[in-house]
Amino acid sequence: MLSFCLLAFYQLPAQAEKPAYDAVNPFIGTGEDGHTFPGAAVPFGMVQLSPDTQIRPFKQSYKWAAGYRYEDHSILGFSHTHFSGTGHSDLGDVLIQPISGEVRLEPGEPGTGYASRFRHETEQAQPGYYAVTLDEYRVRAELSATERVGVHRYSFAAGQEASLLIDLRSSIYNYPGKVLWSRIRLRTDGTITGMRETRGWAPGRQLYFALRCSQPLSGHEFLDREPVPQEYKGFPPPGAGSADVPSIEGRGLIAVLHFGRIGRPLVVKVALSPVSEDHAIANLDSEVPGFDFDAVRASARRSWERQLARMNIRATEPMRENLYTALYHALMAPTTSMDIDGSYRGPDNQVHKAVGFHFVSTFSLWDTYRAEQPLMTLLQPESRTVDVIRSLLESRRYSPFGILPVWQLQGLETWCMIGYHAVPEIADAYMKGIRGYDAGEALSAMVASARYAPYGHLADYMQLGYVPVDRDAEGASKTVEYAFDDWAIARVAQAMGRKDIASEFEKRSSNWRNVFDSKAGFIRPRLSNGSYREPFDPERSGVDSGFTEGNAWQYSWYQPHDEGGLVRALGGDAQLVAKLDATFDAIVDPKKYADVEDIAGMIGQYIHGNEPSHHLAYLYNYAGAPWRTQERLKQIVDTQYKPSPEGLAGNDDLGQMSAWLLFTAMGFYPVAPASNEYVIGRPFADEITLTLPNGKLFHIVAEQLSDTNPYVGSVRLNGRPLKRGFLRHEEILGGGELRFVMSSQPDKSWATLPNARPFSLTPYR
Amino acid sequence: MLSFCLLAFYQLPAQAEKPAYDAVNPFIGTGEDGHTFPGAAVPFGMVQLSPDTQIRPFKQSYKWAAGYRYEDHSILGFSHTHFSGTGHSDLGDVLIQPISGEVRLEPGEPGTGYASRFRHETEQAQPGYYAVTLDEYRVRAELSATERVGVHRYSFAAGQEASLLIDLRSSIYNYPGKVLWSRIRLRTDGTITGMRETRGWAPGRQLYFALRCSQPLSGHEFLDREPVPQEYKGFPPPGAGSADVPSIEGRGLIAVLHFGRIGRPLVVKVALSPVSEDHAIANLDSEVPGFDFDAVRASARRSWERQLARMNIRATEPMRENLYTALYHALMAPTTSMDIDGSYRGPDNQVHKAVGFHFVSTFSLWDTYRAEQPLMTLLQPESRTVDVIRSLLESRRYSPFGILPVWQLQGLETWCMIGYHAVPEIADAYMKGIRGYDAGEALSAMVASARYAPYGHLADYMQLGYVPVDRDAEGASKTVEYAFDDWAIARVAQAMGRKDIASEFEKRSSNWRNVFDSKAGFIRPRLSNGSYREPFDPERSGVDSGFTEGNAWQYSWYQPHDEGGLVRALGGDAQLVAKLDATFDAIVDPKKYADVEDIAGMIGQYIHGNEPSHHLAYLYNYAGAPWRTQERLKQIVDTQYKPSPEGLAGNDDLGQMSAWLLFTAMGFYPVAPASNEYVIGRPFADEITLTLPNGKLFHIVAEQLSDTNPYVGSVRLNGRPLKRGFLRHEEILGGGELRFVMSSQPDKSWATLPNARPFSLTPYR
Repeated sequence: MLSFCLLAFYQLPAQAEKPAYDAVNPFIGTGEDGHTFPGAAVPFGMVQLSPDTQIRPFKQSYKWAAGYRYEDHSILGFSHTHFSGTGHSDLGDVLIQPISGEVRLEPGEPGTGYASRFRHETEQAQPGYYAVTLDEYRVRAELSATERVGVHRYSFAAGQEASLLIDLRSSIYNYPGKVLWSRIRLRTDGTITGMRETRGWAPGRQLYFALRCSQPLSGHEFLDREPVPQEYKGFPPPGAGSADVPSIEGRGLIAVLHFGRIGRPLVVKVALSPVSEDHAIANLDSEVPGFDFDAVRASARRSWERQLARMNIRATEPMRENLYTALYHALMAPTTSMDIDGSYRGPDNQVHKAVGFHFVSTFSLWDTYRAEQPLMTLLQPESRTVDVIRSLLESRRYSPFGILPVWQLQGLETWCMIGYHAVPEIADAYMKGIRGYDAGEALSAMVASARYAPYGHLADYMQLGYVPVDRDAEGASKTVEYAFDDWAIARVAQAMGRKDIASEFEKRSSNWRNVFDSKAGFIRPRLSNGSYREPFDPERSGVDSGFTEGNAWQYSWYQPHDEGGLVRALGGDAQLVAKLDATFDAIVDPKKYADVEDIAGMIGQYIHGNEPSHHLAYLYNYAGAPWRTQERLKQIVDTQYKPSPEGLAGNDDLGQMSAWLLFTAMGFYPVAPASNEYVIGRPFADEITLTLPNGKLFHIVAEQLSDTNPYVGSVRLNGRPLKRGFLRHEEILGGGELRFVMSSQPDKSWATLPNARPFSLTPYR
Repeated sequence: MLSFCLLAFYQLPAQAEKPAYDAVNPFIGTGEDGHTFPGAAVPFGMVQLSPDTQIRPFKQSYKWAAGYRYEDHSILGFSHTHFSGTGHSDLGDVLIQPISGEVRLEPGEPGTGYASRFRHETEQAQPGYYAVTLDEYRVRAELSATERVGVHRYSFAAGQEASLLIDLRSSIYNYPGKVLWSRIRLRTDGTITGMRETRGWAPGRQLYFALRCSQPLSGHEFLDREPVPQEYKGFPPPGAGSADVPSIEGRGLIAVLHFGRIGRPLVVKVALSPVSEDHAIANLDSEVPGFDFDAVRASARRSWERQLARMNIRATEPMRENLYTALYHALMAPTTSMDIDGSYRGPDNQVHKAVGFHFVSTFSLWDTYRAEQPLMTLLQPESRTVDVIRSLLESRRYSPFGILPVWQLQGLETWCMIGYHAVPEIADAYMKGIRGYDAGEALSAMVASARYAPYGHLADYMQLGYVPVDRDAEGASKTVEYAFDDWAIARVAQAMGRKDIASEFEKRSSNWRNVFDSKAGFIRPRLSNGSYREPFDPERSGVDSGFTEGNAWQYSWYQPHDEGGLVRALGGDAQLVAKLDATFDAIVDPKKYADVEDIAGMIGQYIHGNEPSHHLAYLYNYAGAPWRTQERLKQIVDTQYKPSPEGLAGNDDLGQMSAWLLFTAMGFYPVAPASNEYVIGRPFADEITLTLPNGKLFHIVAEQLSDTNPYVGSVRLNGRPLKRGFLRHEEILGGGELRFVMSSQPDKSWATLPNARPFSLTPYR
C-alpha cells in the first residue's frame, strides 16, 4: 500500500515542468568541443540525418566531426549518417542540398558554392525532428527519420525552379581519394539508388541508398566531377557527355534532380543499407511506404517519448534540460547496422545475417564501457544489451583477427583507441545476470581478445607484465586499461567456475602496479629493460608520451578494480586525497594543451572532456572522504554542463559524457563496471524515477537540494540508512527508493563507517 | 537400314588419326595477333587459368590481351581469368607465382623482378591442362581447372624454400589506379580468401577468391605496396608493420605464402566468385573438395572429350589440328558467371540469383553473333543457347539502361564496340525454333535495345535513317550494322505475328541504303545535312573515318539480309563480282595499317583478322559466281590458318575466327544469322560428322578433296542434288548427309540454277 502511494506520487510530474520530450535540447554540444549534431534520428537509428555546415580537409576536420558546428553560418546540405560526439570521424553519407533557382555544383561558401546561409533563429530541433530555413534558396527544410530512412520535407520558394543536389563526394573527414567508388542510378519507377565505397575511418566501407521523391522529376543530371584517369579512357556508356543518363559510376559523382516549379512541399525519403541497393529499397518500402512527413515525425516523437519516459526527472529547469538532453544523447548509439531482413556487413566486409537478434554497430568502446553501457543496463530492455553482446560476439566470429571489436562502425573495425573494452561491456552485463547469448562463447571471445599477441603490444604485456614505452608510445595507458579489462575477465571466469582463467587474469589485473612508480607516486612510462623512462614529466601528453589522450595525472589513478591497491601504493588515504587534490587543483598553462585534440574541460589536470578522468571525483570515497567527492562533483557539474550549444566540455563520445551526468545526477556512478557496485556521490536532481528493465521503479530523491546544501547529510535505501559508500546493482533492480538529505555540512560519520568503501578495496574476495 | 550402316561407317575414326583431344593445340593463336592463351580451362569455365608473360602499361597492352604471348621468354605467374582472343582486355585476376628460394616482391624481368625464364620445350598444353618449367625457380608448374576452380600443382626444386607469391595488383591492361580496393585474409582453418575491385574494361568489377593449399603454411607475409595517402593515416590494424597479419586491405596488395622445404608437390586450388568470399569457399568445397590434381585434370579432359566429340573430323593432319583447336577455342565463351548456388552479379553490379538457368557472361556480341553463336546452335545442347538468351534477357532486366548487353564481362557492361548484336543472337535462336525463355520478353528486349535513343546515336538513326558522321565518328559502320539487327527484329516480330513491329523494323532494315553511294559504289560516311562527307577515301580507317576497325572496303558489302539489294545498287552481278575482286586484289601499302589494332590478316582490302570481312568470300554466291567463293575460301584458308602459335591471322575474338573456319570447313556459312540459311562455300575436311542437339547426325563428306581439286563439282543432300547455293537449318537438324564431290573445275551450271541464290536476294518475302 505504501509502495502504491509512492508510485502514484512519483509519477505525478510537477505542474510547471515541460514534458520530457520538450526538455531535450539537441543543440547542446553542437558548439565548442561537444561534437554532437542537431539533426533528426530515432533512438539508435541507422539514419541520423543532420545538416553539415562545413566539410573541411582531413587535417582540419576535428571541429566538424559531427558535420554541424553551431558557430557556422552556412549549411552545405543534409547528410544521412553522423556520429554523436566523436573525436575522430567519417560518414556524412548522401548529402542532399535543396536549391531554388540556379544550381551550383561545387561545395563552398554561399554565392560561389552550393552552401546556403542560415540563421539559428530559423532553426528548430527536437528529438526526431530538425528544421531550418536556407536563406540563400528561401527553402524551409524539415528533417525526420525512421530507423533506416531519412525523410526530408522541403518547401521551396514560390515561383522558383526546385532542385535537389546530391553530392556523393561529400564526406566528414574527407581527403582526396577517400571515395573508392560510387554509383547512382535512376530506375524506371523513379527510384534513385546508388552506393559509395570509402576509405575512411573504416576502410572499404560500402553504403547503399535508395531515394524516392513525392513528386516526379522534370529532369536530372548525373555528373562525374573527377575525370577518368588519363591512362584509362573507358568506353563511354550511352548518353555520356549529356547529363541525363540513367546511371553513372565513378569517384566524383553528383546528381541534380529537377522538379520545375512546384506548389507543394517536396517530400524526399532516403533509405540506407550496408548491403545492397535492393536492400535499401526493401528498407524504404518497409519503413516509409508513403510520403507522409508528419506521420514519420509523429512516430519518431513517440519513439523518443517512450525512451525518455524511462527516466522521470524533477530538477531545476536548466538541470532538467541538461539531463533529458543527456538521456537523448545516451540513446544515439550503438546504431542499427542491419537491414530489415537482418542482413548486415561484418568486420570481414562480407554480408551475414543476424538471426534472432538485432545487429548494431558504432561501438566507441573505449568511451562507452565506463558509464554509457552500464547505464543502458538500467534504462533499456535487457534484449537491447543482448543485441549489443551478440553483435560483439558475431563481430568477433567474423573478425579476420578473431577478436572482439575495438572501435567498430557499420560493422567494420577502425582500430581506433586502446584496450579491449568490449570485455568490460560484456562482463558488466554478465555479472548483472543478463543472459541470452552463448556465455561460453562470450568468455572465449574475451579471453581470445586479451591474449591476441599482435594487438596493441599484448605480446610484451603478457611477457613483461606491462607495455614498454620504447615499443609502444602509449604503453603506460595500455597497461592500466588492459589490467582493468583483465580483472573483468577474471570476474566472469570466476562466476563461471573457470578457475584457470580466473587465476590467469586476476594475476594480469594487478599489472597496473608494474608501471606505478611509488617513489614518484605516478603511473610512469616504463622501458622494456625494466627501468622507468627518464626524464619523467607527469604533465607530458601527446605523441610518444606513453599516454593516450592524456598524461600521468589522469592515468595514474586508473585501477578502478583495485583502488585499495592504489591507496596502499601511495601510502594511505591521505596520500590519495592529496594526489586527487593535486590533480584537481593543479595550475595548468592552458596553452600547453590548446592543440591537443580531446583535451578539453580542464579543472587543473582533471580533464572532464575526456574519459580517463571520468571516475576521478569518485575516488575520494575510496579514501574515506566522500564529502570531497561531493565537492568535486559540484565543481564539475557546475562548470562542465550547460544547457546551451557550448554546454558540453568535451566530445560527448556516443553518450559517455552524457551518461556520466545522468549517473552523477542520480547520486552514484559505476567506477568499476562489472563490479555490480555504484559508488555514491551526490545527486543533482530533486527526484529521478527509473523504470527498470524488469518493470520495477527505482526512485532517487534528494531532499533540500540547493546550491547552499552541496553535501550529503544522510542516505537511506528503502527507508533504512545506507551504511556504506556504494550501492549494489541488485538493490536498484529490486526497485524502491534511495533518499538523500542534502546538507550544508558533510556527514563525515556516514562516510567513514566500516565497510563503507566500495568493492575494489578488496578486489579478490 | 541404310542410315544405320552410314552411321556405323561414319563413326569409325580413320586408323592413323590422333584422338580429337590430342589434335587440339592450345598454342595456336598465342603468337602474333591471335590473342589466345595456352592455359587450362573447362569448356565455358569461369576460371581460365593461364600464364601471364608480361603485364604492360595500358597503352602498350594490345599484344598481351590474353596475358600470354608466345614470343616472350619469361612468365610472371599464373592468373585465373583471361579472354580468349580479344582485342581489348582486362582480367588476369589473382596472379600466383611459385618461387623456390628468395622471393622478389615486384614484377619485372628475371633477376630483378619475380618473373621467371621459361623455354617452350618445357611447355605442354592440352585442353584443361598446361605445364611449364620455371627455369629461374626450378619449379615444374602444372595447371588444371574445374568450372570455378583453378588447380595448380607445383613441384619445387629440392632443398629450397618453397613460396607462393600472390600479386593482387597484377592485371591485364593495367594502369595506375586500376585497383580500387582489395583484401586478403588468412582464415584460422588455413583458407585464404580475398577480393579485388577494379576500374577496368568493366568499371567497378568485384572478384572474390578462396585459396587452399595441400600443405600447411610455415609462414606468410601480407603487404601493401601502395602507401596509404599522405592525407589519411588510418589506425593501423594489429600487427601492422610486421607482415604476418591475418588480414590486409588496400590498393597495392601482395601476399607471400611460405611452405619451407617440401618434399612433395604442392597443390593449390583457387575458387572464384563474383559475389563474396563465402561464395568462393562454397564453390571451392563443391567443385574440388580434395587435393587430387590428377583427378581434376582427368575430369577436365573428359569434359573436353565430350564437347569435342560433337564434331567428328577427318582431314589432313594440319587441318584437323586447326579444326579441333578451332572447336576448342569456340567453346571458351560465354563463360559461367554465377556461383554454385546461382548467385551472380548483373549489370547493375548488384547480386541476383539465376533460377532455372545458368548465368553466363563474356559476351563479345559484335563478334560472336556472326558465326560463333550460330555454330553453338548446331554443336551445343539447346539448353546452352537458352542459358545464353536468358542471361541476355536477365541482364537487360537489371541493366540501368534497360537494354540488352553490348559487350559484357562477368555480368558487367563495357560498352565496347557497336550495334545491338544481342538481337541477332537471340533472333537466330528464335528463328531456329529454340525456346525455353519468355519469347515476348525477348521481343520487347530487342525492340527496347533498338529504340534506346541515347545509345550509339540511335536518336539520329531513327530520325534520319542513318548515323551521321559529323555526330558519330563511326556513323557509317553503325548504320549498316543497325540495319541488319533491325532486320533480325523484323524477322522475329513477323514470326510472332507482331506486324506493327515487323513493319517498323523492316523499314529500318533498308537503312544501309541511306549511306550507300551508288555513284561511288561504296558505303560512305554521310553528314547530318544529308550530303556525303568530302573528300571520300575508301581506304581511310581509324579515328573519325566513319568506320569501326575498318574502312569502306570492308563495310560496303555488309547487308547480309539484303545482298540482292546490294547487287541492284551496284548495277548487277558482274558489278558485285568486280567489287569483291577489287577488295581482295587491292594493292595495299601494309604500312598504312601497321599501327591500327584489329586490322590483321589482309588479303588486299579483305581483312580476315577482323569480323566485318568474314562474310565477304561468300558473297560471290549472291552474284551467281560460287566458284569465285570457292577460290577465295581456299585463298583465305591457305593463308590465314596454320597449326602453329602464329596460326591465327587476327584476334580469335572468343571463337569467332575459329567458328568461321569450322563452318567454312563444313562447306557452308551463316552469312545472315536469323535467316536459317547457310550459304554453300566449299569444304576443307574429308569428312565431318556433327552430333546435333537433337541427337541426330549430320555428315558432311568431301570426295576427292585435294589441293588440285579446289572446286565443288557437285553437291548432294541425302543423295539428291542440291539445286541451290544454300542449305536450310532444318535440313541439317533433320540429320543426313551433305556430299560434295570436289573437282579441278567448277560446276558453273550447278551454281547458276534458278533459286540457287540465298535468301537475302528476296529479303521481304
